[in-house]
Amino acid sequence: MSKGFFMNDYGEGAHPLVMQRLMETNLEHTCGYGMDDYSLRAQALIREKCGQPQAQVHMMAGGTSANVVALSAFMRPYEAVIAAAGGHINVHETGAVEASGHKVLVAASKDGKVLPEGVRAVCAAHPDEHMVHPRVLYISQSTEVGTVYTMDELRALRAVCDECGLILYVDGARLGSALVACGMTLAGLASVADCFYIGGTKNGLLFGEAMVIVNPSLQKDFRYMIKNRGGMMAKGRLCGLMFLTAFEHDDYFAWAAHANAMADVLRAAIDRRGLPYLQETTTNQLFPILTPEQDAALSARFDYERWGVLPDGRVAVRFVTSWATTEDEARALADAIGAL
Amino acid sequence: MSKGFFMNDYGEGAHPLVMQRLMETNLEHTCGYGMDDYSLRAQALIREKCGQPQAQVHMMAGGTSANVVALSAFMRPYEAVIAAAGGHINVHETGAVEASGHKVLVAASKDGKVLPEGVRAVCAAHPDEHMVHPRVLYISQSTEVGTVYTMDELRALRAVCDECGLILYVDGARLGSALVACGMTLAGLASVADCFYIGGTKNGLLFGEAMVIVNPSLQKDFRYMIKNRGGMMAKGRLCGLMFLTAFEHDDYFAWAAHANAMADVLRAAIDRRGLPYLQETTTNQLFPILTPEQDAALSARFDYERWGVLPDGRVAVRFVTSWATTEDEARALADAIGAL
Amino acid sequence: MSKGFFMNDYGEGAHPLVMQRLMETNLEHTCGYGMDDYSLRAQALIREKCGQPQAQVHMMAGGTSANVVALSAFMRPYEAVIAAAGGHINVHETGAVEASGHKVLVAASKDGKVLPEGVRAVCAAHPDEHMVHPRVLYISQSTEVGTVYTMDELRALRAVCDECGLILYVDGARLGSALVACGMTLAGLASVADCFYIGGTKNGLLFGEAMVIVNPSLQKDFRYMIKNRGGMMAKGRLCGLMFLTAFEHDDYFAWAAHANAMADVLRAAIDRRGLPYLQETTTNQLFPILTPEQDAALSARFDYERWGVLPDGRVAVRFVTSWATTEDEARALADAIGAL
Amino acid sequence: MSKGFFMNDYGEGAHPLVMQRLMETNLEHTCGYGMDDYSLRAQALIREKCGQPQAQVHMMAGGTSANVVALSAFMRPYEAVIAAAGGHINVHETGAVEASGHKVLVAASKDGKVLPEGVRAVCAAHPDEHMVHPRVLYISQSTEVGTVYTMDELRALRAVCDECGLILYVDGARLGSALVACGMTLAGLASVADCFYIGGTKNGLLFGEAMVIVNPSLQKDFRYMIKNRGGMMAKGRLCGLMFLTAFEHDDYFAWAAHANAMADVLRAAIDRRGLPYLQETTTNQLFPILTPEQDAALSARFDYERWGVLPDGRVAVRFVTSWATTEDEARALADAIGAL
Repeated sequence: MSKGFFMNDYGEGAHPLVMQRLMETNLEHTCGYGMDDYSLRAQALIREKCGQPQAQVHMMAGGTSANVVALSAFMRPYEAVIAAAGGHINVHETGAVEASGHKVLVAASKDGKVLPEGVRAVCAAHPDEHMVHPRVLYISQSTEVGTVYTMDELRALRAVCDECGLILYVDGARLGSALVACGMTLAGLASVADCFYIGGTKNGLLFGEAMVIVNPSLQKDFRYMIKNRGGMMAKGRLCGLMFLTAFEHDDYFAWAAHANAMADVLRAAIDRRGLPYLQETTTNQLFPILTPEQDAALSARFDYERWGVLPDGRVAVRFVTSWATTEDEARALADAIGAL
Repeated sequence: MSKGFFMNDYGEGAHPLVMQRLMETNLEHTCGYGMDDYSLRAQALIREKCGQPQAQVHMMAGGTSANVVALSAFMRPYEAVIAAAGGHINVHETGAVEASGHKVLVAASKDGKVLPEGVRAVCAAHPDEHMVHPRVLYISQSTEVGTVYTMDELRALRAVCDECGLILYVDGARLGSALVACGMTLAGLASVADCFYIGGTKNGLLFGEAMVIVNPSLQKDFRYMIKNRGGMMAKGRLCGLMFLTAFEHDDYFAWAAHANAMADVLRAAIDRRGLPYLQETTTNQLFPILTPEQDAALSARFDYERWGVLPDGRVAVRFVTSWATTEDEARALADAIGAL
Repeated sequence: MSKGFFMNDYGEGAHPLVMQRLMETNLEHTCGYGMDDYSLRAQALIREKCGQPQAQVHMMAGGTSANVVALSAFMRPYEAVIAAAGGHINVHETGAVEASGHKVLVAASKDGKVLPEGVRAVCAAHPDEHMVHPRVLYISQSTEVGTVYTMDELRALRAVCDECGLILYVDGARLGSALVACGMTLAGLASVADCFYIGGTKNGLLFGEAMVIVNPSLQKDFRYMIKNRGGMMAKGRLCGLMFLTAFEHDDYFAWAAHANAMADVLRAAIDRRGLPYLQETTTNQLFPILTPEQDAALSARFDYERWGVLPDGRVAVRFVTSWATTEDEARALADAIGAL
Repeated sequence: MSKGFFMNDYGEGAHPLVMQRLMETNLEHTCGYGMDDYSLRAQALIREKCGQPQAQVHMMAGGTSANVVALSAFMRPYEAVIAAAGGHINVHETGAVEASGHKVLVAASKDGKVLPEGVRAVCAAHPDEHMVHPRVLYISQSTEVGTVYTMDELRALRAVCDECGLILYVDGARLGSALVACGMTLAGLASVADCFYIGGTKNGLLFGEAMVIVNPSLQKDFRYMIKNRGGMMAKGRLCGLMFLTAFEHDDYFAWAAHANAMADVLRAAIDRRGLPYLQETTTNQLFPILTPEQDAALSARFDYERWGVLPDGRVAVRFVTSWATTEDEARALADAIGAL
């Protein structure tokens, strides 16, 4: 019998509905490079959901590629992007942003979330041409440690961006889980961000992220940038069709809600069992702390990631749920936690 | 009724067999980033087909990305890659190679194929540190104009590469059609190339290219390079599974043979009708020259690309066939050509 | 006895007047990085000579650095610069422009000068996002083969730049000789170019080039770019002082006139002797064609560069004069040419 | 009367001896790009002083350029350089290293000096291909805050470099002052470093840094790299001659000793007066802390930099001495400090 899978949210293919639509349309002929009708319809639908008729929407092949294309499109060579120390671009993209020529500056953060005063401090410390010029604030929603910016927090960051002349860019690799967790809408996010992407890979699609460029001053020649960075897919229709499927009946949110509900099942069990957290979260990632014995007991039956070892020998682990996590799987892990 | 589609070889999804395998395995859990079992098996199988047990095989998301990752992995900053004037990296990748910091040098070519003496001339013209240092020879098999290098031609290029200290890199976006067209094997190609990729996007897969690094001196840390350039897919298993499907029963070659056979149907019709070619080919791309009237007649019923207008007003067009071209479609176009 | 020196125009130090001023001011204290009074005065003076009060003037350490800083400041990542095949950035800068991420596109040229129709053809051939977007036209005045664009030719290029949305950038490594040779003024050049640099290294200074950014839309944050590309000198005052010296009494033009006069001495001798040219010129570079015997006779007594060997075995050579060439030296070579 | 100058160590031209040699040789003809006899002799002399006959020595135009050329020559695209938070490349080079494509990783430091355990921690935190790969350890000798690594400290860093597979690179912008301050020799430094540069700009030359590549595995094609990054000077002989002058009678060390002696005069006065330091140093930079009143009194008569304002309102300032600081100047500032 296979182990329960809580390793990540990209361990399966696509939501069955997505697969069904791919099958149904498989032999249709379309033009390439995202100029097909499915892509155009998906773009229009996302613009509508965002309440931003002037926005551009572009389908990207993956998260790192999406970040690099956008950031290098928005910055001149001496400009830099501000991020949290644990920001995905700062740690887990093998220097892809730097490979495009730009420094990542670290701002103070709390619970994985960049603090407005941290942004201000970075800008104040970079006053002249002997240093890079901060130009973009990069945040992740949800963050790399599963936390979520509230609308108030986003508005505060928007204010500091306006004050310092920064572009607000949101990495939405796990945007679905974040929006559902805090009752935020795409329109709400779009009202504060200059640009963000809606993550498909980790919420029901085979792959693909939808870049939404809200600010018209950032839109020029974005397709050139996608191609220049090697991110343009010949069969662009795949992304178009998959995002159309995800949004035409708001399934994207339903899938994320399911992932969060499965996380809630685990969270309730962890809380009942009184396990501490490395980081409290409200999304589809949980970071409980286990004793080595507890870890041994659970890891025999469940796949998950060991996030780090504490000085006292205990193990912080990560459980991730997704659209693909079944109630049975979640219940089984919850029961096992209860029995620790 | 929809038009017959001869626009390109990436206008549909994937071969039904590929889709079926994606469906069957959709809910399986695997680890990410191409470390899963399907990817490992596909890599092993491709190594075997190439007769190169020491080769590395990496799954790439697309052709431009594959080219940039490989070329920037192989070159130091002042080194350059030689290509034909019409080479895909030189014209149709929006400067992606230059964006990674390297110059593309143009060598003399005939019928889209780089000439050994052209390579030698480029190397001779770059003798010192005031100029870039040629380091890689890039060729496409089949070429951008549908022609094919024979084994003898490849051996001659191999010899000039050895003579000039060049790496021989082969862009195999349309490798299937090329190999079938001239009876070449993967092992034959692997015996002369330092590195090449096997194109999946244009021969039956949803997307994906398999990079084969034959030369061990070029293999170090290639996964770092993939990630650094934004080309690593979270659900790497998709490529793994698709390539496994393509090669476990040699369907890859069968699909390419079908594409070539459909092209042969068109070629026979063109020849019977006595139409001239912009470029004679033996693969799945054809470039006949039409009068404006002929073009109008055909384009009313078939989708294809206008490749260029000749000084005398005639139109060079491109017909492309693929695994997805049906006999009925090919027959219909052939008949229409006959009736011009 | 040392040989007469016609190898290049950077084989000595600086004009004695420049050295004298460096000596006189050597122990003065100034602030760094080109913010000192000498630099400010030199900038103001050059703006005045150019008749462009709104222009920015920046002192650069060398020609390749100047080209890279300017071109990478002016272009977005997917944009490209057009140049003649023999353009310095295309051949003799070891891929420095490509190292900054940009493709160099080659336009048709005649006598080393880019042709308007060549520029138009390049732009026409790059219509969409699958190719780089031409953004800058790079020309050299004088060209790499010693020829000069007339004002009419510059106006024609300006017109094609306006037509195609291109920035006109002029590499002035040998600007002094060019201006003097064709009676052009800095103001004349500034009236057509968006940006150009005034070469100091090859006309009397120890080193240094003065970048003149005429077009205000290109001026933003240029000092950041200089530093970002490693081109900002701590002792910026050196360039400032040297350019001030060169322009406060128009010595820059006198030095160039001397170089051209010395070239005229040689030209007259070559013409009298009836030697053919690889390329006719009016500036401080001459490219006569010698028989091997003639070359042997001259090279025993004079240092110059062998530019290339013709198919018939004759040798094209290059004689370069400068502010440092003495009348005696020029006369000696002229006499030797006469005696061939 | 002009103010006493303690603003920096690059506020004047060159040591008079250097100027004299430039004058004497000004009209000599030499070949370009650092292939002249002066450059060759300077390189040989420096190799000898370093006790490293196999070392390569290259003359660089400036510090930022030198750092970028070396670091981008030594690293592959996904590799990163480790530095102190205050490292010059991390803060004061406007992202020049990142512009060449590489991330700068910050290691823990004390008194401006990188700690071995800090290096180990950075390496341990970067275990796989989802993160950059640390490849170079960058340190400055003296550091940006005027402190000096002892030979023991350098050996400890060498050991950790060997342990972690790192190249040890030393930025020697102020190497003269550092060596003299702690009695270290070039040979001593060369015995532990893979590569370092000897700063000329801040110790008596008009400009120029001498890069010493001790480790043969790092030497390949370095001149290509210099040119590729825009750092090769046409009149390379200037650097050659200036470094030859600096080292043929060890004046380089005498000039640094003078700078340090002048700093000692100030240090003694500061200590007598009982002023605290932001950072204690032994080299030509001092960082005393002044009350606003003290600062006002001194700044009326002396030029120096305000380094930062402390939370309590006091001002940390920087006094820098150099070869050009006269005893009278130093004495005047010392007296003024005593009279505070």
